[in-house]
Amino acid sequence: MTGRCPPSLATFTDLYELTMAQAYWREGLTAEATFSFFFRSLPPQRGYLVAAGIDQVVTELEQFHFTTDDIAELQRLQRFDEDFLRYLSGWRFRGTVRAVAEGTLVFAHEPLLEVTAPIIEAQVVETLVVNRLHLHTLLASKAARVRWAAGPHRQVIDFGARRCHGLEAAQAAARCGWLVGFDGTSNVMAGLRYGIPLYGTMAHSFVTAFADELAAFRAYARTFPDSTTLLVDTYDTVEGIKHALRVAAELSQQGHQLRGIRLDSGDLLTLSRIARELADAAGFPQLQIFVSGGIDEYAIEQLVRQQAPVDAFGVGTKVGVSQDAPYGDCAYKLVAYNGQPRLKLSEHKQTLPAAKQVYRFYDAAGQMLYDQIALADEPSPPGGQPLLHEVMRQGQRVVPPPTLEQSRQYFRQHWAGLPPVCKDLHQPAPYDVQLSVALHQLTQKLVAHWGHRLETPRHQG
Amino acid sequence: MTGRCPPSLATFTDLYELTMAQAYWREGLTAEATFSFFFRSLPPQRGYLVAAGIDQVVTELEQFHFTTDDIAELQRLQRFDEDFLRYLSGWRFRGTVRAVAEGTLVFAHEPLLEVTAPIIEAQVVETLVVNRLHLHTLLASKAARVRWAAGPHRQVIDFGARRCHGLEAAQAAARCGWLVGFDGTSNVMAGLRYGIPLYGTMAHSFVTAFADELAAFRAYARTFPDSTTLLVDTYDTVEGIKHALRVAAELSQQGHQLRGIRLDSGDLLTLSRIARELADAAGFPQLQIFVSGGIDEYAIEQLVRQQAPVDAFGVGTKVGVSQDAPYGDCAYKLVAYNGQPRLKLSEHKQTLPAAKQVYRFYDAAGQMLYDQIALADEPSPPGGQPLLHEVMRQGQRVVPPPTLEQSRQYFRQHWAGLPPVCKDLHQPAPYDVQLSVALHQLTQKLVAHWGHRLETPRHQG
Repeated sequence: MTGRCPPSLATFTDLYELTMAQAYWREGLTAEATFSFFFRSLPPQRGYLVAAGIDQVVTELEQFHFTTDDIAELQRLQRFDEDFLRYLSGWRFRGTVRAVAEGTLVFAHEPLLEVTAPIIEAQVVETLVVNRLHLHTLLASKAARVRWAAGPHRQVIDFGARRCHGLEAAQAAARCGWLVGFDGTSNVMAGLRYGIPLYGTMAHSFVTAFADELAAFRAYARTFPDSTTLLVDTYDTVEGIKHALRVAAELSQQGHQLRGIRLDSGDLLTLSRIARELADAAGFPQLQIFVSGGIDEYAIEQLVRQQAPVDAFGVGTKVGVSQDAPYGDCAYKLVAYNGQPRLKLSEHKQTLPAAKQVYRFYDAAGQMLYDQIALADEPSPPGGQPLLHEVMRQGQRVVPPPTLEQSRQYFRQHWAGLPPVCKDLHQPAPYDVQLSVALHQLTQKLVAHWGHRLETPRHQG
Repeated sequence: MTGRCPPSLATFTDLYELTMAQAYWREGLTAEATFSFFFRSLPPQRGYLVAAGIDQVVTELEQFHFTTDDIAELQRLQRFDEDFLRYLSGWRFRGTVRAVAEGTLVFAHEPLLEVTAPIIEAQVVETLVVNRLHLHTLLASKAARVRWAAGPHRQVIDFGARRCHGLEAAQAAARCGWLVGFDGTSNVMAGLRYGIPLYGTMAHSFVTAFADELAAFRAYARTFPDSTTLLVDTYDTVEGIKHALRVAAELSQQGHQLRGIRLDSGDLLTLSRIARELADAAGFPQLQIFVSGGIDEYAIEQLVRQQAPVDAFGVGTKVGVSQDAPYGDCAYKLVAYNGQPRLKLSEHKQTLPAAKQVYRFYDAAGQMLYDQIALADEPSPPGGQPLLHEVMRQGQRVVPPPTLEQSRQYFRQHWAGLPPVCKDLHQPAPYDVQLSVALHQLTQKLVAHWGHRLETPRHQG
């Protein structure tokens, strides 16, 4: 493949999307279809999901087309008809997309995004749409749990760059962390790309590069006299803390201030207490205690509950790969074709038919009460706020994408309305999601037609 | 950031790599350092790891430099000295890299790759090196388990594209699957990029787009009369199988042959038996039974043990995210600076000092007996085959990279030498990894110097 451009974004598709496309095309199935992206269930211990990746999908759908090189490569596969490939080479995504806003809290069965387009177009983009929305939503949801566990007064910094599954996933993790309220990232590429504040401390290799720990600490402090956080666990942690405080005293004499110390291994509760006591006794009550080392929302919750004197958490590996839920049970399903509702009945995988809207109901204090999943074309229920909005028409954006800052702000407001019982990290109360009478009846009717029983959320009482 | 190029690969680094670099630079620490990438331990239930991502790292290190735009962005952060940034702008990676071959079986503590370069250069590439080697090794190791579980006569196809963590991870999953002996991928981009055979069946949406299942099956078969695999679980699986066999009969009358049916949900053992019996009874003993739907090596092992009549497995989600081990405990550690060995002693994270070599010992039949981790500069032990070879000198490749086919071939040969007890999916026998006397003594000496006890593999003899 030397000498040609790398395959374009459009080739990020499962082969069957293209073979099905050829079959649709040959059979004259060119009518409009609606596909719905949703999660069938929430991952274990999750009370909510944070929808993310929406705007990246829309941006990529605007650019989605097969290049001349792509077509030549597809031709070489000897699976596709010449006339179908000709059709594909002139193809652009011209569909309509309705989606929730980036940072919206969503629940099982609720569509995050719906694509309406001639069926081939809506089908071929499936792999890309699912990949983006799945990953970003997974990472944003994990990060929201971490942010919540840390409480409002401790900083949380994304340290996931080296263990996320690729550079792309690392950018997503940094971005999703910022979306849900992290304070920064260590990932320079993400910081530059998204304008996220950059944080950094030092590595063990820095310490071991010098003849001894104190020499390493002094060297770093000389270079960054007002922004140094010293990593103290390379050899003996308590000794390391004492060395750091000696450097703090030296900096202080020169009119500077050591920012903090970082604990990256061992018994973080005990060590943070020792560090705090020693720092306070040495006259450095403002010295920050920064904790990292394989921690996630569960470890943070425990440290916070035990009142560990920690000022900031660095979260990497377990958060960046969503360790306890590295995938979610999501789907992109055909829900209507040519104006007719469709559904799938496979065991445990039944879908709800037709294009939908989700209405959210709040109490007078702004707390979320319940959601109703309804047909997109039924009248809005009084008091319900619709979550899905048109973002793309005929393949073009109809509204400018929100900035990341706007999405962060939106998430913060939204999050305040989620009942605290739904935020629990272990046994969150299920949030009430109902079906509209019309959607329930339509589903029943179609299921009866296909001779199966229904297993979906109860309809509204 | 409008109007500028996106941040270059070099910016995929944690901020502290750059702040440490500035400190090294100001302090005049410019001597050569060696960093070693290894896994501290194997993930749960793993008896081995398959080293991968080596050649991607080498290719990217050849290109690793900061662009003018990157430097301008870094300047805006107001953390770096002008003269350091000037230094950085002329910077290229000029180090030496020694590594095991792509597809080599490796074990805890064994270096997969070692970088020797002026310390700043070796330090700044850490984030990229760790990200690449971690992900690819994780995915190749998971895939090797799947390939083993399926046995030599059943096909395994990568279906991970939509659930892998990003497009990049999806390409890695497809490539790593092929490396360890998968038969193909559904991912068109990966197929085109790496020359991996492409496979595809059909989606539920195709079936639901038609008025009924039989109409959908017939339409697909008309388009691909000799390469159709029908997905039979959209409504009622047994009915679906019968519909598929009807289409098989129709194709047969026209001189064509239905390739297979695909089961994607439900009790896969029972359904595969029903499918086989019905297909045989209908006179289609060659009809393939293709199974998918959230399966991994554990599900495959069980189906194989129960003699499920399955001809091919499609593995997606759980394999593409390495679900039971979405991260590995790996590290990139300074092991020597300016000719002096270095180590880190943090709890449970102690490293072995100095540049190393790994020797592999085989019995007369070609079975692996044990490995010895030794100092790179001690004499080779008789009969030991060295695993690390120089691949890059002064920032340039010294040998052309193997093709993916060569690596696949290399893995296959290598794999045949691994004792079967080490391949077990649940309680693999630990493979014997020893330290050379010289390495053991050096480690002891350094640990004694720093006043700590040693927790590393036992030394030889």
